[in-house]
Amino acid sequence: MILGLDTRPLDVVADFPAIPDGWAYLDTAATAQKPQVVVDAIARAYGETYATVHRGVYQRSADMTLAFEAARRRVARFIGAESENEVVFVRGATEAINLVAQCWAATQLRAGDRILLSMLEHHSNIVPWQMAAERVGAAIDVVPLTADGQIDLGAAEAMIRPEHKLVAFAHVSNVLGSVLDAERAVRIAHAVGAKILIDGCQSVPRLPVDVAALGCDFYVFSAHKLYGPTGFGVLWGRAELLDAMPPWQGGGSMIDKVTWERTTYAPAPGRFEAGTPHVIGALGLHAAIDYVDAIGLPAIHAHETALVTQAREALRGINSVRLLGPENSAGIVSFMVEGVHPHDVATILDEGRVAVRAGHHCAQPLMTALGVEATARASFGVYNGPADIDALVKGVERVSRIFG
Amino acid sequence: MILGLDTRPLDVVADFPAIPDGWAYLDTAATAQKPQVVVDAIARAYGETYATVHRGVYQRSADMTLAFEAARRRVARFIGAESENEVVFVRGATEAINLVAQCWAATQLRAGDRILLSMLEHHSNIVPWQMAAERVGAAIDVVPLTADGQIDLGAAEAMIRPEHKLVAFAHVSNVLGSVLDAERAVRIAHAVGAKILIDGCQSVPRLPVDVAALGCDFYVFSAHKLYGPTGFGVLWGRAELLDAMPPWQGGGSMIDKVTWERTTYAPAPGRFEAGTPHVIGALGLHAAIDYVDAIGLPAIHAHETALVTQAREALRGINSVRLLGPENSAGIVSFMVEGVHPHDVATILDEGRVAVRAGHHCAQPLMTALGVEATARASFGVYNGPADIDALVKGVERVSRIFG
Repeated sequence: MILGLDTRPLDVVADFPAIPDGWAYLDTAATAQKPQVVVDAIARAYGETYATVHRGVYQRSADMTLAFEAARRRVARFIGAESENEVVFVRGATEAINLVAQCWAATQLRAGDRILLSMLEHHSNIVPWQMAAERVGAAIDVVPLTADGQIDLGAAEAMIRPEHKLVAFAHVSNVLGSVLDAERAVRIAHAVGAKILIDGCQSVPRLPVDVAALGCDFYVFSAHKLYGPTGFGVLWGRAELLDAMPPWQGGGSMIDKVTWERTTYAPAPGRFEAGTPHVIGALGLHAAIDYVDAIGLPAIHAHETALVTQAREALRGINSVRLLGPENSAGIVSFMVEGVHPHDVATILDEGRVAVRAGHHCAQPLMTALGVEATARASFGVYNGPADIDALVKGVERVSRIFG
Repeated sequence: MILGLDTRPLDVVADFPAIPDGWAYLDTAATAQKPQVVVDAIARAYGETYATVHRGVYQRSADMTLAFEAARRRVARFIGAESENEVVFVRGATEAINLVAQCWAATQLRAGDRILLSMLEHHSNIVPWQMAAERVGAAIDVVPLTADGQIDLGAAEAMIRPEHKLVAFAHVSNVLGSVLDAERAVRIAHAVGAKILIDGCQSVPRLPVDVAALGCDFYVFSAHKLYGPTGFGVLWGRAELLDAMPPWQGGGSMIDKVTWERTTYAPAPGRFEAGTPHVIGALGLHAAIDYVDAIGLPAIHAHETALVTQAREALRGINSVRLLGPENSAGIVSFMVEGVHPHDVATILDEGRVAVRAGHHCAQPLMTALGVEATARASFGVYNGPADIDALVKGVERVSRIFG
């Protein structure tokens, strides 16, 4: 049995009736399929319990407000936040990073300051910082990767200086699955007084995360990658940082008092949540967290690590395959088939009912560093099993034969 | 029969199984209940057809991308846009206005310029402009209301000057139901070369809207008020205006090419849609528009106008009631019960299973102008009928007795 870690293999695919028999869905790093309990929670929320939040006096609106704020507490508990007031509801991780890059940087970043990123970041953890840096005249430094595709924290330690006001790293690479030693990254940032934001898009669904234990300053993730709804995500930030940040978007709910002469703003997190929120996004995320927590992140991590091991071992047996990333990747395997464009790999795999992603994965600078234009990427979720890896490997063998 | 216009009364409440018998939901201006077809479309989209968009090579992702872009074309057709490229998907109307206030204003608003708003605007159409004005040193002027609570376009005509670069008015007031003569407002703005943004949150669900016929420059609305999902909305803007605006949020999908030296951006609408979009929000809105269009906005408008007439006539018969807003309001009636706080009105109505909103309705400057702290507000939707008005009136009579 491949799944030889201290855990039984997960067998939860029956929770996902929308995954048809024999379909190997290996694009969970792009978005996770939804367990039926999440779909049902969303349908119920739009149905017999639907109302708006915060301002309704009538019972159903009061109940929905309680459910909405319960979701915020559930998120706080899930990621180890000290208070639900540190949990800002946003559209997704991209908006969360932009919020920090605009509001935190508005008062904390000045000309001559520097931002430290890494070579493997997703565009969402690059472009907002480029825009922020350009606004104030700050500069960006880029930490290189180790030979096996991890953020080189030794290099980071050597590079960082007091001019660095912010470090922003992915907890898990969306292309390579590389897992950051986040505690060490936090120590490196804090040693020079820099704040550190961790992009948790790929880690929150794959590893136990405890922001208090990590000691980081900002942590962001998207609900749809955590088996939850689209259009929803979380910015966690230390209370004192959020409280010191000016608002970003103006509108209802984020205000204290509006007059034509002077408008005052609500404290965080409300200050950053202008307008009617994605109420049902919050409830759907709550259901998704309940689902994931019932399985347990340690079990999920062990399961996906075992699938990675199985996939890498089998793919390595195919001569034309070049594997990227570290051996102990968290549920994500990028690879090349010699002489075959990754899009053709993905197309042929799709004919065999194997869904993988091909492209730059919103990480063009990483592609440049790897010397490729694109990769094929298989990424795993709770519903995958050894049969999916077998299907992947058979498909890649077929690619190899066709182009061989 | 009250519904004496050239139309048969709507009788579609059976499409909304989540509205229990005998519950008078009169808070549609805050958020609309969802027809079962919309709930079903959302559940199906999260189920057997779920995938991400834009970057997947496999079939289900390609299909989802087609569905997502079909939703954009459906929105364009619904509001009379010339091209789907003028339709930017956002979280809601609030984000849409903030986007214009940040990106359009970034290059088009300068110190000494002026913005023209009205006294009845929602906070979402005030605070973003205050923030934009403060950034560049511009000023805001406020058009007063007529005695019956409509934006006084005669006054607007007298006030506007070449220093005004932007006019932003609500098409329908969320508090009073006042309907703007939008064509005339557009002419007033354009006469001095100002652009005009129209807040369509309350109009798109209540009136036929054709942005090309109106001739406006920006039009915004939220899906959840149009019987659709939460966390989703639309910014429509003229192509030449959107194309000239710098991006706002950085991340995936909004880029052309990312390098550490220089990042270039995609054309509109992609430039303004950083990150994985609220895919299911788009599909849910598509279903909601199909639903609303099948009934027909002229029929909906006639239906809601008739309900307003019935409500105002009946409430006027209660001595202690003060009606606000114009007689021909579009589906929204704000009122005061003499000597009773609107929250108490709403609480007592809730005991009688009538859900109305009480508060400042995110329009504190309007409350100040009306000389009140809050109002009670009944707002109607396609599912309401004469029985709901009867329940409202009976409830207000009870309020009057209790406090009389």
